[in-house]
Amino acid sequence: MAESRWIRINCDMGEGFGRWKMGPDEELMRVVNAANIACGFHAGDPSTMVRTVRLAKKHNVRVGAHPGMPDLLGFGRRRMDIAPDDMYALILYQVGALAGILKAEGVPLNHVKPHGELYFYIQRDAAIRDAVLRAVRTFDVPIYGLPTEQMTEACQQIGLKLIPEFYPDIDYNEKGELVPVAESVPATPGLITERIRLFADTGKAKTKSGVMVDIPVSTQGFSICIHSDLPGALENATAARQAVYQIKNEGNLNALALRSNCR
Amino acid sequence: MAESRWIRINCDMGEGFGRWKMGPDEELMRVVNAANIACGFHAGDPSTMVRTVRLAKKHNVRVGAHPGMPDLLGFGRRRMDIAPDDMYALILYQVGALAGILKAEGVPLNHVKPHGELYFYIQRDAAIRDAVLRAVRTFDVPIYGLPTEQMTEACQQIGLKLIPEFYPDIDYNEKGELVPVAESVPATPGLITERIRLFADTGKAKTKSGVMVDIPVSTQGFSICIHSDLPGALENATAARQAVYQIKNEGNLNALALRSNCR
Amino acid sequence: MAESRWIRINCDMGEGFGRWKMGPDEELMRVVNAANIACGFHAGDPSTMVRTVRLAKKHNVRVGAHPGMPDLLGFGRRRMDIAPDDMYALILYQVGALAGILKAEGVPLNHVKPHGELYFYIQRDAAIRDAVLRAVRTFDVPIYGLPTEQMTEACQQIGLKLIPEFYPDIDYNEKGELVPVAESVPATPGLITERIRLFADTGKAKTKSGVMVDIPVSTQGFSICIHSDLPGALENATAARQAVYQIKNEGNLNALALRSNCR
Amino acid sequence: MAESRWIRINCDMGEGFGRWKMGPDEELMRVVNAANIACGFHAGDPSTMVRTVRLAKKHNVRVGAHPGMPDLLGFGRRRMDIAPDDMYALILYQVGALAGILKAEGVPLNHVKPHGELYFYIQRDAAIRDAVLRAVRTFDVPIYGLPTEQMTEACQQIGLKLIPEFYPDIDYNEKGELVPVAESVPATPGLITERIRLFADTGKAKTKSGVMVDIPVSTQGFSICIHSDLPGALENATAARQAVYQIKNEGNLNALALRSNCR
Repeated sequence: MAESRWIRINCDMGEGFGRWKMGPDEELMRVVNAANIACGFHAGDPSTMVRTVRLAKKHNVRVGAHPGMPDLLGFGRRRMDIAPDDMYALILYQVGALAGILKAEGVPLNHVKPHGELYFYIQRDAAIRDAVLRAVRTFDVPIYGLPTEQMTEACQQIGLKLIPEFYPDIDYNEKGELVPVAESVPATPGLITERIRLFADTGKAKTKSGVMVDIPVSTQGFSICIHSDLPGALENATAARQAVYQIKNEGNLNALALRSNCR
Repeated sequence: MAESRWIRINCDMGEGFGRWKMGPDEELMRVVNAANIACGFHAGDPSTMVRTVRLAKKHNVRVGAHPGMPDLLGFGRRRMDIAPDDMYALILYQVGALAGILKAEGVPLNHVKPHGELYFYIQRDAAIRDAVLRAVRTFDVPIYGLPTEQMTEACQQIGLKLIPEFYPDIDYNEKGELVPVAESVPATPGLITERIRLFADTGKAKTKSGVMVDIPVSTQGFSICIHSDLPGALENATAARQAVYQIKNEGNLNALALRSNCR
Repeated sequence: MAESRWIRINCDMGEGFGRWKMGPDEELMRVVNAANIACGFHAGDPSTMVRTVRLAKKHNVRVGAHPGMPDLLGFGRRRMDIAPDDMYALILYQVGALAGILKAEGVPLNHVKPHGELYFYIQRDAAIRDAVLRAVRTFDVPIYGLPTEQMTEACQQIGLKLIPEFYPDIDYNEKGELVPVAESVPATPGLITERIRLFADTGKAKTKSGVMVDIPVSTQGFSICIHSDLPGALENATAARQAVYQIKNEGNLNALALRSNCR
Repeated sequence: MAESRWIRINCDMGEGFGRWKMGPDEELMRVVNAANIACGFHAGDPSTMVRTVRLAKKHNVRVGAHPGMPDLLGFGRRRMDIAPDDMYALILYQVGALAGILKAEGVPLNHVKPHGELYFYIQRDAAIRDAVLRAVRTFDVPIYGLPTEQMTEACQQIGLKLIPEFYPDIDYNEKGELVPVAESVPATPGLITERIRLFADTGKAKTKSGVMVDIPVSTQGFSICIHSDLPGALENATAARQAVYQIKNEGNLNALALRSNCR
């Protein structure tokens, strides 16, 4: 039923490393519904993870694991070959590490969301996809991602729930796939608002070249992803939050009949 | 009651890193009762951890987490200052990472045993001890260690079970504390057998200087630790295993009335 | 002769890591005379080092190596035990790495300046001091540092030139030693100006407790160090630069008879 | 002229990491003419580098730098995307680090030899090849490698000397390219001897499928590479050494007219 749909805003958090900061986590926590916390391989470290979990708890924000490629220097955005068995181990290790911290802090694990190149690797490579999904299933939580045909099918096959995401701050190509951050047009609050409205009204996104493409959505709801490491992240997240409120308040929901349950 | 006492042999395992090996894990798994698996900070990596967990499962060996200092180059044997809050996070991260792997592989976490300098740091520094014990308590398993007065008291205060260990392959000093590996006399199977017999008969160990010192033991049983990265590890573990069998079979148990439940 | 004295301002640079930034290097390069470039152990990475060397070259700023403890997570500010032989190797590795980059870019190595805890370790431990000084001597450049009695003597013994530093942005204790950053009063441009004037006029610094202490200086000149990772680094460096100009322009130099050769 | 040709045996060395060992360096140093010393990115660490340099010096073995991909866990054998500018920096950093150690120890840098996947990356990618060759040229020493057409041309263009290598312990494919280690038939001393003789007699290698392929050689001499991390490395190196002696002693040199100047 239409009214059962929901929208949540998620944001990557805890992507500093030691003394180095990344993204305005303190401010973003006031705006988002779910935090994807880096697990130490592309960013983050144990102490940053604990602090970010506590910050999320204070602001009543759901916590997901944000595992990445083992590549601190490249921020998990570079391609590298990982054998599927190694990938399975890498995911268990990272999500398990966050799960240990969450257990200590009394916060449930809400979801897993792969970071950067890991995300693209999963889309591209069936053996890696299987390895990652098997590892994630261990933790009895859904995975966030673009609900492409392969992902949807692979998740169904192993009984893993896929929460579809919409990405208003990076570009889609004409196949409805995500364009790497470096090749995307920098997002602005205006663009964010426009893209969320367009998607809520039509289920579509407009590519760089101006073509409208269908973005797969679930019948239950979806999550809007804002990248905290991009310039203007806080403004973009705030714009997303306002757009979601407005859609909810207008009531006369369209085809998607979205209902936000933003806290 | 005397008969309820038990002896188990534990051994550090999974202390390779990538292509680099350390210790004869395959052979040792046939001899020991519990494997302390390195968690990636002083040694070990996600894939090595998965392989070692599977090996333990195959040989019906209990699995504990073996967290260490964040110091691969120094194999976790060098002193470094870690703030207690950082230590709390480091322990949760490492044990959680192994717990994630264990969950996927269907193996319960049996215990936590701190490695090398971390072990000494806990003995030496009250704030670090508290941070580590609080982190370990999260996982509802006992900690292995030397049951010094401070450790025993600190564990009791936070409701953490301490399994006492006896170390037949490194030296004790006259306070009944462990001497660092580098300063200990290299152990031989003969020395291992002799030390276990002496301890079983008298509850004492003989120091380098020939003095007999009392080694604290629990009323329930204890674990014998063999270091897998020392030369002769397999021979030492085998000698320990035989000594334990013999003690058990002799039946006429002494003051300690030890009963082995070695599988 | 008095007029031969000089003052230079040096600043730690290139202390980012991968995507993570630290300090306003671009702006600081316009203000300082020498850049101490992090060498990848406490901060920095090969690409950041190349970029920072090019930036220094563009602004005609001298380049020194800024080696540190092997501790990215702790930014080289935590104590850890390093064996003297390992320390010798660590210093050769880091300075050599920068020297390789400098050779490719056609920029001479000007000096070596130890970072953070490495600096304190050298002051505290004679074997470490010897190991570091022997390694630095390999590169035929002076070392920057606080000219304590031990440092001065140790440098003389092995024929290494020591360039004395004055630190206007952290506190001195009553022995004329540096107080760790975390325990120092945060510096302001006003404080920087005042401390440099005081030092130029009297050769002294005022401790937190208000005591005046003698700061050892050479007869040839010295370097003023501004920490780029502290808040207000750019303002502090600019204040230092202006203070140095003013001292130079006043001409009526005092006891120290300082003459700036700031470009 | 025929007599001016020479053969040298080179071997990768110093490929341990901290406490972890790899390859029988002590024994190999007695057999080879040149040691390619790992520089800390795929293997090796500063202290291991110093020890290996001293060992080479003691045995009068030439020392080359053996830089690799930034991938300790994968031993530099996994593919990963590195931007050419980052690659340039990585090579300068690694070779510079070894050069620093060599300077301290009074040993000249003899050559640079890329490791594992870095070697293949150079063959495959023109921009990476250019970045690596530009970086190597900084150090005024030749590069070791397979003298493919592209490598030969690229080296000539920037004025870098290429020392051709023959690899008797891994397979060639029918294009005369190297097969990855994992896909090669394990070498034996007999196979090593046979392949070196065949190459010395005919300038050819036999592929897995039994086809004879031409292996490009220079008119001046070449280097035989033995991989120290493969099983049987010491036996293989010894067989290579004996084969080279025999070829030299027979005097009646063939098409290649090889003359060994093995010390």
